[in-house]
Amino acid sequence: MTIRYPNGKKFQKKLTQPPIHLAEQKKVQFANRGQSFEEAINQTNDFYLREQLACIHKKPTPVQVVRVEYPARSRAVIREAYYRQASTTDYNGVFQGKYIDFEAKETKNKTCFPLQNIHAHQMIHMKNVMNAGGITFLLIHFRSLKETYLMYGKDLFFFWERQQKGGRKSITYEEVVTNGLKVPSIFHAPVHYLPILEKLT
Amino acid sequence: MTIRYPNGKKFQKKLTQPPIHLAEQKKVQFANRGQSFEEAINQTNDFYLREQLACIHKKPTPVQVVRVEYPARSRAVIREAYYRQASTTDYNGVFQGKYIDFEAKETKNKTCFPLQNIHAHQMIHMKNVMNAGGITFLLIHFRSLKETYLMYGKDLFFFWERQQKGGRKSITYEEVVTNGLKVPSIFHAPVHYLPILEKLT
Repeated sequence: MTIRYPNGKKFQKKLTQPPIHLAEQKKVQFANRGQSFEEAINQTNDFYLREQLACIHKKPTPVQVVRVEYPARSRAVIREAYYRQASTTDYNGVFQGKYIDFEAKETKNKTCFPLQNIHAHQMIHMKNVMNAGGITFLLIHFRSLKETYLMYGKDLFFFWERQQKGGRKSITYEEVVTNGLKVPSIFHAPVHYLPILEKLT
Repeated sequence: MTIRYPNGKKFQKKLTQPPIHLAEQKKVQFANRGQSFEEAINQTNDFYLREQLACIHKKPTPVQVVRVEYPARSRAVIREAYYRQASTTDYNGVFQGKYIDFEAKETKNKTCFPLQNIHAHQMIHMKNVMNAGGITFLLIHFRSLKETYLMYGKDLFFFWERQQKGGRKSITYEEVVTNGLKVPSIFHAPVHYLPILEKLT
């Protein structure tokens, strides 16, 4: 049955994903809502899952448990434990059958992204993912500028290796803009990175 | 340059992955080495990573941290925390660009695999993975029988739904054998599941 508006025009269900130019117009900044970058990404991933666009999760923070107590009639209580450094990136999951793996970092710096934010073992993990055919990238959020960029692993390696060879210890803002892809922000997906990946495939 | 054996025969580098029938002949049981099922899977994944066959990791156990202390001159100590129930499966990663996601369970039972070993939210997660085009399965290890089977998500759902509809609360051993794929065991990869997945693609 065709549903019609009172003026006779056919009713058509709108797409769940607004086109990017629209998203750019109705810019919603999660920073204005007092959300952290991590919360904004989690909200985005929840939206992708709800809309069956992708299944991407943040991995739990690894903890080294040393001592556990079992008080009577209650569940186990961890009494001594230490945070371990993650050996992989923070987020991974699946989009259109493909493996997606990324790390997210933010900086208050307006002119560059300091590479000390990334650990050597995370770079090794990203190389392993690429070797196995996965899609890996870094989401860089410039908090003061309210801008987010996606930089693919291969581009990130270039700057990482430049540092290893004694070059600068950061990626300049201009280099991020040139080599990265700007991530739009829409109401339900404050860090709306999936449409950028779609262009790749 | 061709390298030759003293008998004049050409030297050819052997494949890193022995064919399955060979693996079956030289059966190495991790249980005999006092290894847990989890350790055996981790060893297998380490081997896959080293040989650049795949990049698959176990996710950290999620912990809800309640109280953290910062003793002088030392790193943060977690003084009160609780284990949370994982909302996803335990293992995920990438193989030939494809997203791989699985849960691993063992039972001492010789005649069936009790479904109480699996939680509803894990089934929901597996459905989400399938919807997004990922490959999801369950590794079932019968400890007493020293046998491991791989059962794809779609087959697992059948038995899960049979239980939901008031049917039996387990999958019989025969059903596992019929609907699952036997996982071979080789020295470096005691739970050698990758060759089974290769057949799928």
